[in-house]
Amino acid sequence: MSDWTIGSLAEAIKTRNLSPIEVVREYLDRIARLDSTQRAFITVDAPGALARARALETEAPRGPLHGIPLAYKDLCVVRGLPTSCGTRTPDYFLSERECTAVTRLSRAGAVTLGKLNMSELAMGPFGDNAHHGDAQNPWRPGHITGGSSSGSGGAVAARLCAGALGSDTGGSIRLPAAACGIVGFKPTYGRVSRAGAMPLSWSYDHLGPMALTVRDCAILLGVIAGHDPADATSSRRRVPDYIAALDGPVRGLRVGVPENYYFDGLHQEVDAAVRVAVAALSELGAHVEPLHLPDPEPMVAACNNVMVRAESAAIHSRILKERPGELQPAVLARLAPGLQVSAYDYIQASRLRARFTREFIAGVFSRVDVLVAPTIPEPAPPLAEAKSGSTDDVVKRMGRFSRLTRPLNTLGLPALSVPCGFSADGRPIGIQLIGRPFDESVVLRLGHAYEQAAGWNSRRPPLA
Amino acid sequence: MSDWTIGSLAEAIKTRNLSPIEVVREYLDRIARLDSTQRAFITVDAPGALARARALETEAPRGPLHGIPLAYKDLCVVRGLPTSCGTRTPDYFLSERECTAVTRLSRAGAVTLGKLNMSELAMGPFGDNAHHGDAQNPWRPGHITGGSSSGSGGAVAARLCAGALGSDTGGSIRLPAAACGIVGFKPTYGRVSRAGAMPLSWSYDHLGPMALTVRDCAILLGVIAGHDPADATSSRRRVPDYIAALDGPVRGLRVGVPENYYFDGLHQEVDAAVRVAVAALSELGAHVEPLHLPDPEPMVAACNNVMVRAESAAIHSRILKERPGELQPAVLARLAPGLQVSAYDYIQASRLRARFTREFIAGVFSRVDVLVAPTIPEPAPPLAEAKSGSTDDVVKRMGRFSRLTRPLNTLGLPALSVPCGFSADGRPIGIQLIGRPFDESVVLRLGHAYEQAAGWNSRRPPLA
Repeated sequence: MSDWTIGSLAEAIKTRNLSPIEVVREYLDRIARLDSTQRAFITVDAPGALARARALETEAPRGPLHGIPLAYKDLCVVRGLPTSCGTRTPDYFLSERECTAVTRLSRAGAVTLGKLNMSELAMGPFGDNAHHGDAQNPWRPGHITGGSSSGSGGAVAARLCAGALGSDTGGSIRLPAAACGIVGFKPTYGRVSRAGAMPLSWSYDHLGPMALTVRDCAILLGVIAGHDPADATSSRRRVPDYIAALDGPVRGLRVGVPENYYFDGLHQEVDAAVRVAVAALSELGAHVEPLHLPDPEPMVAACNNVMVRAESAAIHSRILKERPGELQPAVLARLAPGLQVSAYDYIQASRLRARFTREFIAGVFSRVDVLVAPTIPEPAPPLAEAKSGSTDDVVKRMGRFSRLTRPLNTLGLPALSVPCGFSADGRPIGIQLIGRPFDESVVLRLGHAYEQAAGWNSRRPPLA
Repeated sequence: MSDWTIGSLAEAIKTRNLSPIEVVREYLDRIARLDSTQRAFITVDAPGALARARALETEAPRGPLHGIPLAYKDLCVVRGLPTSCGTRTPDYFLSERECTAVTRLSRAGAVTLGKLNMSELAMGPFGDNAHHGDAQNPWRPGHITGGSSSGSGGAVAARLCAGALGSDTGGSIRLPAAACGIVGFKPTYGRVSRAGAMPLSWSYDHLGPMALTVRDCAILLGVIAGHDPADATSSRRRVPDYIAALDGPVRGLRVGVPENYYFDGLHQEVDAAVRVAVAALSELGAHVEPLHLPDPEPMVAACNNVMVRAESAAIHSRILKERPGELQPAVLARLAPGLQVSAYDYIQASRLRARFTREFIAGVFSRVDVLVAPTIPEPAPPLAEAKSGSTDDVVKRMGRFSRLTRPLNTLGLPALSVPCGFSADGRPIGIQLIGRPFDESVVLRLGHAYEQAAGWNSRRPPLA
């Protein structure tokens, strides 16, 4: 199975060195062998995947996703499969409409292996789940995968699927990507339709790809991006050719390294790995320069806390009011206060957010093309440590763990997390590349060049 | 001055039968003679208008607005002039940015005569104003103009300007258009940038043209429509040629006449005039059919009351908290409760609104191309009657007066008010033509054909 990337699998399928059925069987075998400990999947659809592979076998190849086995975070509606959203209720989210991104991937030839584990209601950056089992980090048993797209990160890293969809309201694609040593991309707000995916907070939710390489993310993004009448917030802007964009020049790109906020209080190994990665960008010909950012701290406190809380409480008001006992304590503790927010505070937060975003973009992207920052302040901690202490302790710990990803949801900017090394005990570390609104191409191009130069994705997790 | 329409003035200027200076002088003379009783203007900029006309005199004609004297509701920021928003504070709304619509009209050659009277903070459908004087209906002294764009309606009807901008959050363009016997167009939400205009409620506010004819409105809309980076809600859709669209066929257009809501409890003369107008549409070749609408009543109660209140209280929180005594009692009574709305109710109202809008559009516009309805349930009442009774009485009366226009702000649909007759005592009556989102062209086309056939706009108000 070569290097397990979508790019290589597609080439093998195209040249008939592998058939869609062989590929799907290989993945299903791995899931059967490994997932009882990995806990990446909530639902595996082996018969459906095999039937689909058989059908594709007889078709002319549709493109780079023809016969590629993917899996979807269990908040994406996939026709015929339940959508638990990480709750104990198999059909928590009911929708007549299949997730648009899933439909587009299927049309492009992808095979659905199943639905992936996630933090309950996508609320939680660690990826533990009391109902479906705690997703395990493939690089180090007993450690978190990061969340909330825990199964997406774990499954791709463990080669249980070739690519996945995640969702990101405060870091839920980038955190598990970084913790699991894979690539995760939160595109610009509006780039990818969220229709048919459970919302958590409309104005902060993003859907995006997770895969082993930047090129694979570019392939997936190219299929799912673009206007969808079913999501009024999806942009009508033209979708560029992201794969072609990978080969553009890196030399001369201006890369900003924040002097404030992003490097405060980092774990020493994360700090070191990110700084080595920044030096590598410089060696690739980028102009690296230090940059003082408008401080995201008060803005995140005011906007994310008020807006995400109010929106998520409104969205999940039924379970919150009727069956709160079904929710995990830390989820309930974060969801319930949203009912008390005033419309005045909500509207003022949204005005503050608009002004801060305008100023941030004008101030930063007049000086640089890409901003770099660590993805998580520390390598993935043990599950027991992440879950320890009082509910209040856990909620505070969650806030610290996602503090580097959350500002990008407020700002709506494209942010790609790429592996940039390992701690001494073998836990992956990730770096975020952040671009202008709708300038996904430049972020992918820089990420691809760095990935090729650094070679971190040639390592494999210690699994059978 | 021919028939005072923009179309005729433009022709006269183009053929040099009139010069921009002659035209501007004529309007300034009328304002000097009539506006002390009409109360249409808050600020008249005679020196600025004359200087501008002189400059245009020497230029090659820029198009159909070259040298045309316009005036703007006093919530549009015009460089060099104050923006009272109908309050007693001359510079109530401060903005470094000129109103985009004003800038576009000026660039097209329009001359700014001044700033127009309006209900305080654009809150009030009658058009009375304790600070700047009650705008007078040109057709009948002592009667309301309708509001909140009271001066826009009054000035155009009295030939004190050739066209105007109004804003419409619950009917504020259409109500004074109908009451003053002119044409007013609330375009689709997102069609015209609101940048540089005082907001009242972002998700319900619209800017649009008011003029003597449908063709004049088409000319003005063609200039102000289209994407503006300064208003994130402005659409990137292509702007069609609205003037060319006027000449398309009316035969075969499907026109729906609501069986419910819109004809309930109408003043008898309004009911009769609208039904005669509907018959005229049929004679023009339109297929007129009765239509049962999804009931807008509960939706208006839930959405407009909750959302407009919460947004307007947030926008005007400073005056509300610091100087409430400066506001007129009925404005304060409608503004203050917005501070008590919960984010939960606000968000649920916005979800309800989205669902209702989807269902309304799917249900109605699968069957018809245009919906017709009266604009106001009664001819313009006397000012004394509109203002009589307790504050609570006035607020309830305001609700009844604007009940036929408000649903279109919730739905965001284009709605054109066109004169369709007069009461026995000479007060104008208007009909609304309502179209699909961004289908302004069909509404203008039908309105133009009706206007040509009916000829109501050949009448003039009884002014010197």
